[in-house]
Amino acid sequence: MTDAGATVGTGGTAGAVEGFRALHHGRAPEDPLVLPGPWDAASARAFEEAGFPALATPSAGVAASLGYADGATPADEMFAAVARITRSVSVPVSADVEGGYGLAPKELVARVLDSGAVGVNLEDSRDGTLKDPRAHAAWLAEVRAAAGGALFVNARVDSFLRGVTDPEEAIGRARLYVAAGADCVYPIGVPPEHLPLLRSRIEGPLNVAPFPGGPPVRELGRLGATRVTFGPGLLHRAMAAVRDIAGQVRRSS
Amino acid sequence: MTDAGATVGTGGTAGAVEGFRALHHGRAPEDPLVLPGPWDAASARAFEEAGFPALATPSAGVAASLGYADGATPADEMFAAVARITRSVSVPVSADVEGGYGLAPKELVARVLDSGAVGVNLEDSRDGTLKDPRAHAAWLAEVRAAAGGALFVNARVDSFLRGVTDPEEAIGRARLYVAAGADCVYPIGVPPEHLPLLRSRIEGPLNVAPFPGGPPVRELGRLGATRVTFGPGLLHRAMAAVRDIAGQVRRSS
Repeated sequence: MTDAGATVGTGGTAGAVEGFRALHHGRAPEDPLVLPGPWDAASARAFEEAGFPALATPSAGVAASLGYADGATPADEMFAAVARITRSVSVPVSADVEGGYGLAPKELVARVLDSGAVGVNLEDSRDGTLKDPRAHAAWLAEVRAAAGGALFVNARVDSFLRGVTDPEEAIGRARLYVAAGADCVYPIGVPPEHLPLLRSRIEGPLNVAPFPGGPPVRELGRLGATRVTFGPGLLHRAMAAVRDIAGQVRRSS
Repeated sequence: MTDAGATVGTGGTAGAVEGFRALHHGRAPEDPLVLPGPWDAASARAFEEAGFPALATPSAGVAASLGYADGATPADEMFAAVARITRSVSVPVSADVEGGYGLAPKELVARVLDSGAVGVNLEDSRDGTLKDPRAHAAWLAEVRAAAGGALFVNARVDSFLRGVTDPEEAIGRARLYVAAGADCVYPIGVPPEHLPLLRSRIEGPLNVAPFPGGPPVRELGRLGATRVTFGPGLLHRAMAAVRDIAGQVRRSS
């Protein structure tokens, strides 16, 4: 199907994935890696031009740009959208591919690499229900085995998102996923007060998303975040601007 | 291949094209039809929610969202992008399909209708060179014959854009295209002072695009514009907002 040398765009080379991986290590606590989330090629170029060293597509943002509800994007359309983004920038791109669309690990890895992405978000719930963590860890290990080092795997931990408030559940899941080969874990929805505990109990990079009214990026870094992403947040801000523009055009005509 | 009843989305029904056509007639001069130009499904929804009765995709805007230079979008990608937009809104959508991608008139009409659009922009220059107006009119007549009434044809007149300043060139072309069955003509780049002359010499609706520092929408209507579109102008304004957002995120991290 593919190998790293045959991928589309500049992202899928061995050098690019190693460069992307290196961005996650050796950072000062107050300087987490900030990855904005493009939803199309134009936004990706804008984020690259702003000086960000890498990008991470949000599946909900791409879905909105394509006209799908979050979680309803067909795999082919998601991979095509990611490929349009990776073709348009020279910085490495990580792709949120949700739960992997039911693809076997080998095919999933091949399709991500074909899209030109060097990293991937993979989530551990489906249709609102948490997956069994050991089964999910075994699946992540298969993804790792299929990818070797050619893909940066960010394993999303959905326990907080799904209403499990005990941080031990997130910690247990995260440790299993790191042991299975995940490069980074992403406890989406983690209350910031739990970050120091998670930081002390989980090895390797932690991805955290800020929320309105919550701690700013630097403070998230001090609390334990290695990497900060925004989900569809930047798309939402952009669409607020588009609604303003639409209103201005309406009023002036 | 297709007929109007088999199209994707809600746009391609006979009722929708008649409703779209009717928007171009019986308007007060100070109230031209204003059609914002979406570049993806999210922007299309924002424009629909703002209350616009119809939309008109700009090929340059869609190209930017897909990561192509203006004029370099493959036909399949342009039609797919238009289909994503028409699927996402319930108002009628006109599609800018540039010069028609070299498709035979019958196939071009079929693909536009398959995309769910009820209208189309077709331009009379290629690679920066004006086409022979009589040959282009004959081609437009073939498009009209293939479409019957099922498609609103907006014939772009590129003479001003290509540096021919004499308004008689635009008038002559526009009259040929109207005689060939165009529903509307679009003298892109027309100096506003020529609009009253064009209005008096051309039958049927006139599409005009405002430019920075030029007359506002209502004044363009008083000068002779029936319909006002923005090309990729609204995408450019949106992307300025995205650059602002990117800068804010950079500074806060």
